[in-house]
Amino acid sequence: MKGRILSGMRPTGKLHIGHLSVLENWVRFQDEYECFYTIVDWHALTTAYDDTSAIKENVREMLLDWLSVGLDPEKSTIFLQSDVKEHAELYLLFAMITPLSWLERCPTYKDQVQQLGKQGKDISTYGFLGYPLLQAADILVYKADTVPVGEDQLPHLELCREIARRFNFIYKTELFPEPQAKLSRVPLLPGIDARKMSKSYGNEIPISATREEIFEKVRMMVTDPGRIRRHDPGNPEVCVVHTYNQIYNPEEVEERVTQCRQAEIGCVACKKRLAEKLDEALAPYREKRAELAQNPALLEEILEEGARRARAVASETMKEVREAMKI
Amino acid sequence: MKGRILSGMRPTGKLHIGHLSVLENWVRFQDEYECFYTIVDWHALTTAYDDTSAIKENVREMLLDWLSVGLDPEKSTIFLQSDVKEHAELYLLFAMITPLSWLERCPTYKDQVQQLGKQGKDISTYGFLGYPLLQAADILVYKADTVPVGEDQLPHLELCREIARRFNFIYKTELFPEPQAKLSRVPLLPGIDARKMSKSYGNEIPISATREEIFEKVRMMVTDPGRIRRHDPGNPEVCVVHTYNQIYNPEEVEERVTQCRQAEIGCVACKKRLAEKLDEALAPYREKRAELAQNPALLEEILEEGARRARAVASETMKEVREAMKI
Ligand code: SF4
Ligand code: SF4
Repeated sequence: MKGRILSGMRPTGKLHIGHLSVLENWVRFQDEYECFYTIVDWHALTTAYDDTSAIKENVREMLLDWLSVGLDPEKSTIFLQSDVKEHAELYLLFAMITPLSWLERCPTYKDQVQQLGKQGKDISTYGFLGYPLLQAADILVYKADTVPVGEDQLPHLELCREIARRFNFIYKTELFPEPQAKLSRVPLLPGIDARKMSKSYGNEIPISATREEIFEKVRMMVTDPGRIRRHDPGNPEVCVVHTYNQIYNPEEVEERVTQCRQAEIGCVACKKRLAEKLDEALAPYREKRAELAQNPALLEEILEEGARRARAVASETMKEVREAMKI
Repeated sequence: MKGRILSGMRPTGKLHIGHLSVLENWVRFQDEYECFYTIVDWHALTTAYDDTSAIKENVREMLLDWLSVGLDPEKSTIFLQSDVKEHAELYLLFAMITPLSWLERCPTYKDQVQQLGKQGKDISTYGFLGYPLLQAADILVYKADTVPVGEDQLPHLELCREIARRFNFIYKTELFPEPQAKLSRVPLLPGIDARKMSKSYGNEIPISATREEIFEKVRMMVTDPGRIRRHDPGNPEVCVVHTYNQIYNPEEVEERVTQCRQAEIGCVACKKRLAEKLDEALAPYREKRAELAQNPALLEEILEEGARRARAVASETMKEVREAMKI
């Protein structure tokens, strides 16, 4: 029997190429696992309850990105979290058995409250404290046994496993699996200014960028600051273009390093070459996306069908949960 | 237009006559208001998540009591909370907008955690902290404008009003009313040992008590401890029987006071007379209950039909909630 994966993303709008390697993993998982991929719009509320105006559009953009890179509704269950009320029911039931201290000691909790507090954003809500519980419900309502995560999310997954164990223990059942982390090495792609790639820095390259955008973004990439004139030799180790070449232009990377060190190529030409390669890589996604964007009814259908399939599994689990709890 | 009432009780099993005046109020409200009466089984989990074995039976017993005293499924919507998932969805959404501090400062919270902690019961769960939120969802998902409460529940209702205001403010809407308290004076009926009537003291008289139980319970009632022999004059002011006479035997109460003070009646006879009256009062409920108890299918039907009606209203509200929140 195939394992079952659940993974989700908050609807933050258009994804950037820093997300691509995660999505490409998701695409691969589709053949090895039974996959549930969800856009977690309820989670978006934990930090953005006071301005929800962008959520729907963000859901749409994210879905377009997902589909354009190859998430396939024929293979995977792709759905919107809030379409499956069973997540909320299980969250409520988990709330009843979860010691407050488990959530308070969550390493991310106080950090994030403080960090966002500095930005003038008050997220010390009951819902924010409880969002690892909602995550646990997201996963366990499908009895997913495998969860692809980054290192930073391991504490939340551990909490999910603790909740599964606690439920099984209290209600003398083996209903829930303890989901395993599937850690994948994700190459870190910096933003064009060499900082972490993030929409909030404006240093990102969207997966859906046009050819013009790609060329413009690459043109603005931070290069070796020591290479001032065309005939100065450069140091690719400190150049963002070089980092990108390793991923998007692997065949030419060695040659380029030599050329750079010997001042045989100018940065303008070097960048153009990368931009060309990047455009080549993203063009198929962009085309698929343009096609899908013209068919809003299809997008709705995909989410509806996904929700239908998700609900079928989730409601089955909830029946078992209620039986185990004798309610 | 009629106002709308929501009220609920935790499924604690058979109710005692201390609950009768509340229920009699509920029965009266049925003609003046559109009433939603709910058995809140999810709330039962806040303090009893670790032993749920009695919940289903308790629901059944409570429903029998409700119906036997005159709650009428033709007039009111009578349902089980967990049958209406919309309560959980609204609880989750309220969680996102409710500052943690609002719940932490709830006067009952720390009290109860401590009190039950002394009994060796750990209820410092996330769900227990949040149960006023679930209550707010119970009420507001029906846009109830009137909530019959006792004095002790006023802080929770105030919190519910605050949440309604906050939601309306954040999402620029007038979706939720601010429900008003309907305070009713409820005569305090002591247990047969003169302490607060409570199943946990074993000093209660169930609404469904048999004639034999009633006579037995009244026989054990605490009387004037100064009246040791039959010819000692008594003091009704310190006698539980007298307190009961005021409610269940009002026509004879004056006569009885005189007889007692002048030692013209013995306690045994005085008690028998009360037991007779109590039995007279409870007999119709008991008979109705026996009849209903023989028809489990009818009970199920009543809850199903109630849930159907409740869901129709609740899902309509949730549609509006999602629209207001733009999710
Ligand atoms: S030539 Fe290429 S690798 Fe060298 S500094 Fe310029 S952009 Fe970077
Ligand atoms: S006679 Fe009646 S009222 Fe007086 S003490 Fe006895 S039981 Fe109480």
